[in-house]
Amino acid sequence: MNYKRRQKQLQSSLANSRLDALLVTHLPNIRYLCGFTGSAGVLLVTEKQCVFFTDGRYTEQAQDEVSGARIVIKSKGPLASLTEWLTSQKAIARSLKRVGFEGERMSFAGQRSLAKSMPSGMRLHSASSLVESIRIVKDSDELQLMRTAALLGASLFERTLQVLHQGVKEIEVAAEMEHAASRAGAEGMSFPTIIAAGKRSALPHGRASNQPIPGDGFVVCDFGVILTGYCSDMTRTVHVGPPSEEARRVYGAVKEAQQAAVDAVHSGQKLGEVDRAARKVLQHHKSGKYFTHSTGHGVGLEIHEAPRVAAGLEDELKPGMVITIEPGVYLPDKWGIRIEDMVVVTERGCEVLTPTNKELIVC
Amino acid sequence: MNYKRRQKQLQSSLANSRLDALLVTHLPNIRYLCGFTGSAGVLLVTEKQCVFFTDGRYTEQAQDEVSGARIVIKSKGPLASLTEWLTSQKAIARSLKRVGFEGERMSFAGQRSLAKSMPSGMRLHSASSLVESIRIVKDSDELQLMRTAALLGASLFERTLQVLHQGVKEIEVAAEMEHAASRAGAEGMSFPTIIAAGKRSALPHGRASNQPIPGDGFVVCDFGVILTGYCSDMTRTVHVGPPSEEARRVYGAVKEAQQAAVDAVHSGQKLGEVDRAARKVLQHHKSGKYFTHSTGHGVGLEIHEAPRVAAGLEDELKPGMVITIEPGVYLPDKWGIRIEDMVVVTERGCEVLTPTNKELIVC
Repeated sequence: MNYKRRQKQLQSSLANSRLDALLVTHLPNIRYLCGFTGSAGVLLVTEKQCVFFTDGRYTEQAQDEVSGARIVIKSKGPLASLTEWLTSQKAIARSLKRVGFEGERMSFAGQRSLAKSMPSGMRLHSASSLVESIRIVKDSDELQLMRTAALLGASLFERTLQVLHQGVKEIEVAAEMEHAASRAGAEGMSFPTIIAAGKRSALPHGRASNQPIPGDGFVVCDFGVILTGYCSDMTRTVHVGPPSEEARRVYGAVKEAQQAAVDAVHSGQKLGEVDRAARKVLQHHKSGKYFTHSTGHGVGLEIHEAPRVAAGLEDELKPGMVITIEPGVYLPDKWGIRIEDMVVVTERGCEVLTPTNKELIVC
Repeated sequence: MNYKRRQKQLQSSLANSRLDALLVTHLPNIRYLCGFTGSAGVLLVTEKQCVFFTDGRYTEQAQDEVSGARIVIKSKGPLASLTEWLTSQKAIARSLKRVGFEGERMSFAGQRSLAKSMPSGMRLHSASSLVESIRIVKDSDELQLMRTAALLGASLFERTLQVLHQGVKEIEVAAEMEHAASRAGAEGMSFPTIIAAGKRSALPHGRASNQPIPGDGFVVCDFGVILTGYCSDMTRTVHVGPPSEEARRVYGAVKEAQQAAVDAVHSGQKLGEVDRAARKVLQHHKSGKYFTHSTGHGVGLEIHEAPRVAAGLEDELKPGMVITIEPGVYLPDKWGIRIEDMVVVTERGCEVLTPTNKELIVC
């Protein structure tokens, strides 16, 4: 990982925000900037240097992992260590007048307590998404990791098809998939696995339950793994028993909508236009009003990150963004269908990271 | 669950904090107070009523789960719904002058945005741990769930002993335990399973890695499940191959220290005294300086919650508190040992929830 480049990118954006430094407290941002994967730390990024603060539990891990930053180990919590250190480093402290902090990530009480203990002359300023706006475009190291995560994630679907049968509980299907993920070396699942069968398939957030798979109907399978820190995310919807003509037709509409949105992805495209591409197809098939969520979201070190892919958004796609494309149709109390791939935006289109076929599978 | 009683307890504490209402945003606190288990919601608790806000994805789930609160479903985010509702309910809004929010749980930016949209005449005040201070003592419903979670958690150790052998990777051991947990109906693990073998056992936070179990040495196994929302937490340390005389001796010291701390638990005891009981034994065995963390922590709907069990704390234990007792000895670059049980504080002592033997097991 080229941590130096990421740190330089952040450092050069500090001046634009009229900041002398940024206190990075959000753990995925810390990992992104210096490689630390533990659960307690803060990274101070000034125009000239990076200093990482953690406690004694992480001495060895910080030395192994942290790149491009000086490491300070103290027995206090990271923020208390930071203010103690700033107070002792008078020359550095004098050069820092405007210090940014991650206002969306630090608690109100945490900010209050930090503000009280900052050296005099230094003022805190809430800064919004400075690191996230760099993370939104993945670099080549990250894309390589995400390709691998997507492939490992997709391999779980083989296990789904082996175990998904009438009478098996949704949570049993999820347990088998999660076991396969662990055996394959995943660090965990990106989110609680969704296996939603029968009427439950109409719930967009149908986390696997104790319900046995019914003998007939759709099963939405939405799942992902975390591998080397990066999340995968995909959805396939299968049908148990012979599908009705209506079920086949609506499945076809969702598949067509998903493909239309994938086809709409390219550098410079507006996010809202990608959403519109899917919505238009479903409207044409008279299913538009049953597509009740947005078309997708960014994914990376976090399962939901920038950008959102939703109606009306004017922001443009850039090469290297990784987004999901996941339209769905949900007929309340009846059934639901969703199909989701992960794609990387390229200059002229996109690279689909999810290798799995999208034809309707009948189990 | 007696949600009404919990709500009344909170309502009667509002006046002490000079608040007319509390906005509860921390999800475990929401679950505790009204039963909602989804991932988006806010609960407004006034002296007279509770109102729960969520969005359309959770309509059905909120109706199924929420108890003792009026449900308001809006398409906006929960906090935006709340302020819109407050603006429309003029009589209620007029009676609320001082509205508390969970300052340790709400982000700085979130508070700023909320403050701007509150109806005029209403002021936000950061309130600290109001719900947490009720949750610190478990009621009888919770104790029953925690007993069951502790038993299910402990049952995984059987699986550990079946699969833990020289050459098997730490993550494979963890994967088997997590699979057993899912099959047994756990909703998930309380935290990433720690399987730390050989030199890695000296890391107090040695999350299972790709390292194969060596043919000789300690393996720290620290794990827990979530069942019906409640976390279990336990640690056992086993030895692969015949232990040296020193290894046996230090294991005995940790076991003695752990028992001494368990024996020190009773209603009215100072938290610092429980920590001291373990530390004293290890000091006597010349291992005191290798016990580098505190003795334990509260556990419940969250894996780490109040109270801390650490040196010098003067607060007293109360009947119904559930804490871990987990001293350890870590010889850097050599090996480590930790033994951990969950206990419920009673009037005259404690009830140990972890049923597992603590004799040294040689694998």
